[in-house]
Amino acid sequence: MQKEYYSYEIFLKDIKALKEQIEPFNPDTLLAVARGGLTLGHFLAIAMENRQLFTINSIHYDKECKLETVNIFNIPNLCKSKRVVVIDDIADSGETLKLILTQLKEKYPDIDFKVATLFFKPSSLIQPDFTIKEAKGWIDFFWEIDPL
Amino acid sequence: MQKEYYSYEIFLKDIKALKEQIEPFNPDTLLAVARGGLTLGHFLAIAMENRQLFTINSIHYDKECKLETVNIFNIPNLCKSKRVVVIDDIADSGETLKLILTQLKEKYPDIDFKVATLFFKPSSLIQPDFTIKEAKGWIDFFWEIDPL
Repeated sequence: MQKEYYSYEIFLKDIKALKEQIEPFNPDTLLAVARGGLTLGHFLAIAMENRQLFTINSIHYDKECKLETVNIFNIPNLCKSKRVVVIDDIADSGETLKLILTQLKEKYPDIDFKVATLFFKPSSLIQPDFTIKEAKGWIDFFWEIDPL
Repeated sequence: MQKEYYSYEIFLKDIKALKEQIEPFNPDTLLAVARGGLTLGHFLAIAMENRQLFTINSIHYDKECKLETVNIFNIPNLCKSKRVVVIDDIADSGETLKLILTQLKEKYPDIDFKVATLFFKPSSLIQPDFTIKEAKGWIDFFWEIDPL
């Protein structure tokens, strides 16, 4: 499979482009998906001067056989939010993002949720509203490379 | 005031040193303080292969005069945690960290909480259990430099 290293230098350029895409939506809250979306969320929040940066947890549990379950937890308090951008590194299968959006919309039906990612796959169940480029294969994000 | 740019390259080295300090404590949970501790928390969680990376929000509100209030919210569910490392970029005045620790210990008296930061000031109300170096002045973290 094709493998791509996603560097800090490229990331800095992409943050700028992603910020410009998101700005017209004027979100009051940024919601980063842990762990993958945390560094992106941090940088975006600084760039957009947004202090309402929250996170949500998703952990995949590989079950014995083929089944896989995703656990969504630590949903933040969004009572004061109206426009929320859910932030993740990549819309891959899109299963986690789909589950997260379903749970968020159920809990907060009046909030306008949008999705921002760096990468997307055309086969993803959720296509991000704001995104930079198609992932042609495996992405090695700079925060995932073991620096030790 | 002395000003120091804290680069991504130095950060990668410090992550390694901080990880080695933390490892003997064997934390089951990493708790990053938003926004400042998010990138550090993300990298540490990957380096330590820890998927239990949660966050907590602290926002300073400057009041009209001299008084300043800190609001702590989105405390995650730590029911299954026993050893938690609270992660922030710097122990500066230490007021936020002190407030966070007080609230966490009140809510979870049986959890062993430790604090990890990249920088500390000797005058901080909270001295981190794990930390890298003294901040002699203002630190410009690479995630705080406007990349745009």
